[in-house]
Amino acid sequence: MPEIRQNLVTKDWVVIATERAKRPEDFKKKEKSSEQLQEYEKNCPFCPGNEISMSPEETLRVDRNGKWQVRLIPNKFPALSRVGERIRTVQGIKRQLTGVGLHEVVIETPLHNMTTALLPYKDVCDIISSYKLRYNEMINDKRVEMIIIFKNHGEAAGTSLIHPHSQIVATPVVPSQVRERFNDAQKYFDENFECVFCKILCEELSEGTRIVTETKHFVAFIPYAALSPFHCWIYPRRHYSSFGDISEEEVSDFALNLHTTLKKYYYGLDNPDFNYVIRSAPTDLKNLDFFHWYLSIVPRLTKTAGFELGSGMFINSSLPENDAKFLREAKILG
Amino acid sequence: MPEIRQNLVTKDWVVIATERAKRPEDFKKKEKSSEQLQEYEKNCPFCPGNEISMSPEETLRVDRNGKWQVRLIPNKFPALSRVGERIRTVQGIKRQLTGVGLHEVVIETPLHNMTTALLPYKDVCDIISSYKLRYNEMINDKRVEMIIIFKNHGEAAGTSLIHPHSQIVATPVVPSQVRERFNDAQKYFDENFECVFCKILCEELSEGTRIVTETKHFVAFIPYAALSPFHCWIYPRRHYSSFGDISEEEVSDFALNLHTTLKKYYYGLDNPDFNYVIRSAPTDLKNLDFFHWYLSIVPRLTKTAGFELGSGMFINSSLPENDAKFLREAKILG
Repeated sequence: MPEIRQNLVTKDWVVIATERAKRPEDFKKKEKSSEQLQEYEKNCPFCPGNEISMSPEETLRVDRNGKWQVRLIPNKFPALSRVGERIRTVQGIKRQLTGVGLHEVVIETPLHNMTTALLPYKDVCDIISSYKLRYNEMINDKRVEMIIIFKNHGEAAGTSLIHPHSQIVATPVVPSQVRERFNDAQKYFDENFECVFCKILCEELSEGTRIVTETKHFVAFIPYAALSPFHCWIYPRRHYSSFGDISEEEVSDFALNLHTTLKKYYYGLDNPDFNYVIRSAPTDLKNLDFFHWYLSIVPRLTKTAGFELGSGMFINSSLPENDAKFLREAKILG
Repeated sequence: MPEIRQNLVTKDWVVIATERAKRPEDFKKKEKSSEQLQEYEKNCPFCPGNEISMSPEETLRVDRNGKWQVRLIPNKFPALSRVGERIRTVQGIKRQLTGVGLHEVVIETPLHNMTTALLPYKDVCDIISSYKLRYNEMINDKRVEMIIIFKNHGEAAGTSLIHPHSQIVATPVVPSQVRERFNDAQKYFDENFECVFCKILCEELSEGTRIVTETKHFVAFIPYAALSPFHCWIYPRRHYSSFGDISEEEVSDFALNLHTTLKKYYYGLDNPDFNYVIRSAPTDLKNLDFFHWYLSIVPRLTKTAGFELGSGMFINSSLPENDAKFLREAKILG
């Protein structure tokens, strides 16, 4: 019989459809790109040499040996406008807010044909450092309530540009999904006198069966009620609610954990398409006892359909414990 | 500047990215299937003649002229088990429920190469009648808390079988997403002494700019804060909370409205992939003042990515008023 598991943080229910279960190997990418990519592509707006003609002005840059290593630039087609005031209007049922905020692209490397898993470790450190720096600058924009750092890797994950990049969006509102999660975490704290994320981390470490990568300050694991195959969380061991408060030592260790985990996906599942997102507290709330930032990786190996849409429940055709074991044991080459 | 609109029912925020806006024509299907389908396909488990060898026992059948027109059968690979007791267990952070419930397939027509939009109107009436009949039978299963009726049309909508079909899943729990929506609707009623869905319908009718199809008992319209291009709601004009309470006259009119609306998608957007889902109240709750059932159509014209995943906000690159006008004016052929 299938089992239905509840995610303690989101209260989401997930049907672990063991009777439909696939083996981890079945999720390996079937179609491989036949395209042979070069280090430089003349039409790519993110490649070195194309900066001036094709890209808007940069907001952050990490240099190495006189050349840029990581660049942040405003998105050329931003979802939100950098200029303008945050104004709410109501007219009957129509609630509207001006679409102001920040939307930037993090160009992760000068090399067009690279991917995070294959970058040298120090380059991954530069990416995470840039996230931190820009996060802590964006906080000062009075219109900003929430900062979302995310990466879309591959077509199934919604990206059209191949050159390795991630994005940062600063929104003028706390989205309702975030607020609900937040309220639930606060209720859990009120009832149990502990942070629900700390509780989960503690139990995951003691059980051990869903752990993927442990480093000094971070733990990557498949959640007990993972929404989809190989869905993974990376939690800091120390309790703090804002990504912006990550220490320099933790930046290096977070890069190590993320890099190692992404290499396991790359080699174990043949470079699957994925999204990752950093879930941090709303920017105006500091040092919260009940909330804990984390990173969530969602490989795009299956499609959601009408059932998920209609119920908000998920069907995961893969057993979290098996997925974790597979990634734990995945051989990293090179 | 983009505007951010709030959905009054779900409290979701949607960035209407007018600067990225596409014209409705741009959403027309680009790749057309080269496959020439026949009325009968020997390997299809839903085609007439294959019933006994390939399909599990049927739970409902509509006959016409001595042959079946609509058949309901248990899903061969069900997400939930028909047999077994509903049992909850807790162990530390692990909350689990036995995966019991019902998962059935509605085979909508004997014709393999058909689609809802092209079916004769009376066949669509038979489909909706079957939904109603089976919904009201499933309610009597004491393990069932929620019944979700949905359709996945096309590969982007998550279906692998071409033969026209929809699905009914009866779950042993009210999903958290439904409960949140429900609680919000109740709060709205408490504060405003009216149903939020009735309020929306009334304002949409008076404004008129987002209306797609009006029939005697139903109204199809693009929501003010549509989550994605051509996202559409069909509301009953009469207030009632359970789909199972639809009258016979309303069944025929609902079929007419849905059929007309799907034809507009078919001809206007070249047979796009889509999901639809009926959102009805939890089965144990009757005659609710504050909740109103409805059908939601979500064409799969764009992909969600890391931003949507991380924020629960949506980016809609299409203006709801333009989408509604386009569908209102779409020419129905044949």
